[in-house]
Amino acid sequence: MMCLEYDKAILIVDMGFRMPEEDMPGVDYIIPNISYLRGKEKNILGVLFTHGHYDHIGAVPYLVGRLGNPPLFASGLTRGIIIKRQEDFPHQPKLNITQVKDGSRINLGPFKIEFFKQNHNISDNLGIFIQTPIGNIVHTSDFKFDDNPVYDLPTNFKKLKEIGSRNILLLMSDSTGAEEKNHSLSEKDIMENLEEIFKQAEGRVIAVTFGSLINRIQQIIALSEKYGRKVAVDGYSMKTNVEICKKLGYIKSHKGTLIKINQINNYPDNKVTLLCTGAQGEGQAVLMRIANREHRFVRLKKQDTVIFSSSVVPGNERTVQVLKDELYRQKSKVFHYKMMDIHAGGHGQQEELAEMIRIMRPKFFVPIHGQYSMLVNHAELAHAQGIPEKNIAVVENGQVIDLTAKRILIERKPVESNYVMVDGLGVGDVGEIVLRDRQTLAQDGMFVIVAIIDRNTGKVRGSPDIISRGFVYLRESRQLLQDTRKKVIEIVNRTAGSGGAVNWSYVKDNVRNNIGDFLYTRTQRRPMILPVIIEV
Amino acid sequence: MMCLEYDKAILIVDMGFRMPEEDMPGVDYIIPNISYLRGKEKNILGVLFTHGHYDHIGAVPYLVGRLGNPPLFASGLTRGIIIKRQEDFPHQPKLNITQVKDGSRINLGPFKIEFFKQNHNISDNLGIFIQTPIGNIVHTSDFKFDDNPVYDLPTNFKKLKEIGSRNILLLMSDSTGAEEKNHSLSEKDIMENLEEIFKQAEGRVIAVTFGSLINRIQQIIALSEKYGRKVAVDGYSMKTNVEICKKLGYIKSHKGTLIKINQINNYPDNKVTLLCTGAQGEGQAVLMRIANREHRFVRLKKQDTVIFSSSVVPGNERTVQVLKDELYRQKSKVFHYKMMDIHAGGHGQQEELAEMIRIMRPKFFVPIHGQYSMLVNHAELAHAQGIPEKNIAVVENGQVIDLTAKRILIERKPVESNYVMVDGLGVGDVGEIVLRDRQTLAQDGMFVIVAIIDRNTGKVRGSPDIISRGFVYLRESRQLLQDTRKKVIEIVNRTAGSGGAVNWSYVKDNVRNNIGDFLYTRTQRRPMILPVIIEV
Repeated sequence: MMCLEYDKAILIVDMGFRMPEEDMPGVDYIIPNISYLRGKEKNILGVLFTHGHYDHIGAVPYLVGRLGNPPLFASGLTRGIIIKRQEDFPHQPKLNITQVKDGSRINLGPFKIEFFKQNHNISDNLGIFIQTPIGNIVHTSDFKFDDNPVYDLPTNFKKLKEIGSRNILLLMSDSTGAEEKNHSLSEKDIMENLEEIFKQAEGRVIAVTFGSLINRIQQIIALSEKYGRKVAVDGYSMKTNVEICKKLGYIKSHKGTLIKINQINNYPDNKVTLLCTGAQGEGQAVLMRIANREHRFVRLKKQDTVIFSSSVVPGNERTVQVLKDELYRQKSKVFHYKMMDIHAGGHGQQEELAEMIRIMRPKFFVPIHGQYSMLVNHAELAHAQGIPEKNIAVVENGQVIDLTAKRILIERKPVESNYVMVDGLGVGDVGEIVLRDRQTLAQDGMFVIVAIIDRNTGKVRGSPDIISRGFVYLRESRQLLQDTRKKVIEIVNRTAGSGGAVNWSYVKDNVRNNIGDFLYTRTQRRPMILPVIIEV
Repeated sequence: MMCLEYDKAILIVDMGFRMPEEDMPGVDYIIPNISYLRGKEKNILGVLFTHGHYDHIGAVPYLVGRLGNPPLFASGLTRGIIIKRQEDFPHQPKLNITQVKDGSRINLGPFKIEFFKQNHNISDNLGIFIQTPIGNIVHTSDFKFDDNPVYDLPTNFKKLKEIGSRNILLLMSDSTGAEEKNHSLSEKDIMENLEEIFKQAEGRVIAVTFGSLINRIQQIIALSEKYGRKVAVDGYSMKTNVEICKKLGYIKSHKGTLIKINQINNYPDNKVTLLCTGAQGEGQAVLMRIANREHRFVRLKKQDTVIFSSSVVPGNERTVQVLKDELYRQKSKVFHYKMMDIHAGGHGQQEELAEMIRIMRPKFFVPIHGQYSMLVNHAELAHAQGIPEKNIAVVENGQVIDLTAKRILIERKPVESNYVMVDGLGVGDVGEIVLRDRQTLAQDGMFVIVAIIDRNTGKVRGSPDIISRGFVYLRESRQLLQDTRKKVIEIVNRTAGSGGAVNWSYVKDNVRNNIGDFLYTRTQRRPMILPVIIEV
């Protein structure tokens, strides 16, 4: 999510979420921190969306209401996806969302906006040209250049060059591919390789990819038709997207090609394709359920061909390997992008990024999207294309750029941008402390000690209760528990004194520290120790 | 760890550990399950080690005592590493370990063994030729073919061919590279690329790699000497290995090249190299401490050159990216293996694996090491080299091969092979239940409810105590806690009846389920609920 501000007028581009890091167990998403916009809601003239991927639209249900429900602008498919998703959040306001397309122009206060088509791996992706009082800005959206896309128009270089001729003050360009050499693969090459697999497949084809990779889904459907196969689509995100795209005309298929998943066994194996989710080895996705023999209608067979037409998201390598192994065990034929080019990313690589810079010939350059290392590499690329270093600003989340017709500056003071985590219904209520506790609990479990103290004697009554999980297997640790109880009694009786006013937090600290050390000596583990002391 | 058994005689090859999976928080290692050997300790004639990497020797301190301390056989460096590691386990028996080398022959019962040198990325790596009453077996160890290694002898094809001429019944070969096309890179190419970086480096060189990659460590030391740099080594595993290797002569350096880490600031930046751990972005490793400004002697400077001379272990991609970003932020020059060939794996790829099979011309083939998908790909490779499918056995941990001079069979009944997890001092005591609890605790935390019941009235006394961690931020959830307490009182009073004999487990189940549902409705989170009910 990015804000452009001129005088008081605010224009927002995109409103996505990111997935949690590995050290954030239980967190669903991370959404943009909108503290800076608090109190400025009435100045928000609109939100422009570049395309329908969740990292660009996913935070809408969480934020749009809190921003005063401003007008939204999105292409047909993007709009369809945003509206569909909003249905999952019933208490949100109705969206005020205008459809735009390649060539659409809108005026919002000081901003004169024109959208232009860009190739990516979802249809209806739009770059944005913004005329402002200080100069013209181009936002590329996620993009790649493709002269031979499949079921899509090739990159319109003529149009891009025309935009580039408008004296561009600032180019903001997608950096995701900035560490990859050369040019991204054309979808045509992918199509040809996929076709080779379809040609040879003797049994069913099971194609897994991202539910959001609309172009690839279209390719698989088209190839299935060419080779006389029906297509069953399975997996929530995939089914939803195919449904939206079919309805809006972004996926084309012959009548009768798409069948329901429960009909898949009505056809000979060499007459069906299963298009489904699970390319990342996600536990609940369709392919994993098939591999685990938990799918309602599909069991793997020896002649099945499984195509992983997607990259592996960093961090998922091991789960994908586990899944792949299981497919091999069940004797499927497996094809993945390391074996042949059956997947292309949606992001331009170094050649394309350099070309974009040459086309736009901007005065100033800001690399956007991607990890910091990618931003830096993109900045170096821009410098190599002749943009002076002082005209390039590499910024991270929360940093503010101060731009005039003459210079680009990074403001010293960033706006608030710490992570806002969504966990269940909670938005922003899971913070450092909760996460640290979850990490500690995961490492060595927890150990609750409940001791009842007799108010009259100041001594522990009976035997303390111990509740422990994730620490040791309790049934096999009776001696340890018995020794611990004895130690607790001793510590409490010693530190609580003999009746009268007792410093309970002193007693608890003693229990926590001493029992912690005791358990560590015995096990070399450090469970979270939680003493509860109750006077009766 | 592999066992060869003839009649009653048992020969063991290697005794390593593996690292825990992502869903095994808190687990240190997974070691081999030796249930099958229980009661057969006296039949174990010896343990042969191929090389000194922890996936081949790491379980020695845990298992060798429990196997009756059998005789061990290892090359000089492997022996040195095993002995050094044993020092960390003071209560273990003294090892009975014989040094062997390229060409050594030993006889153990029916097994006549000969060791032969194999190239890998640690020195003193040995393949094993075993003459048995039913025929000759070759175990390749981890290997690659390298005609131009650095500070090591090239692959001795003459010797390998001589072994191949001995009528090999069974070849067991390293499958780790079986999914990689072509030939592995030679260390000479790596050396040349590394040298380019050294040539251009203006400030310090900070080279990170695995502590076990002895060959690479030698290369960095040699290049430093060539370019007039002292070398400081930091990181426990790296320092230990360099120390052992220096002592045993496996790493060579001029007198005075190696300096202590606290001397690093005594030299001009362009006169020092820091060789350290942390190539995987591990939190406590040296490079991460430097990046986080927590290292005692080293802060990053703008002219520093950081070389990642190692691959990224699957699953670590995200942490490595986070580290890389931080290095970029601090303006270091970063080189990693995706940018140029500054790392080669230690495992032969498809060309080398095929060549090994052609050299050995075995009757039977068993792919060993690596993920199941790699075993299958290696088996297909062997088949393509002319070995009939029925003569190839693809087996996983715990499976037993029944081999005669005439045929190879996989026995129907595997031996016990479920994971034995090491966590602190506990070996094998962390099982399914403990792990599942840790996972649950990590997801949504825990929620302990302590209610005191008056024995006379059967009613809750006072307000129940709630101890919760990792669920919600407690200070901001007072209303939720208050509502929960009220609900607990209501549930207990309702289910406990009015005094007399109470079914406490019924009461607890009610609290657990009802409060679980209540919290889920309010938060859409499912903490682990632990009710404690105490009668006074």
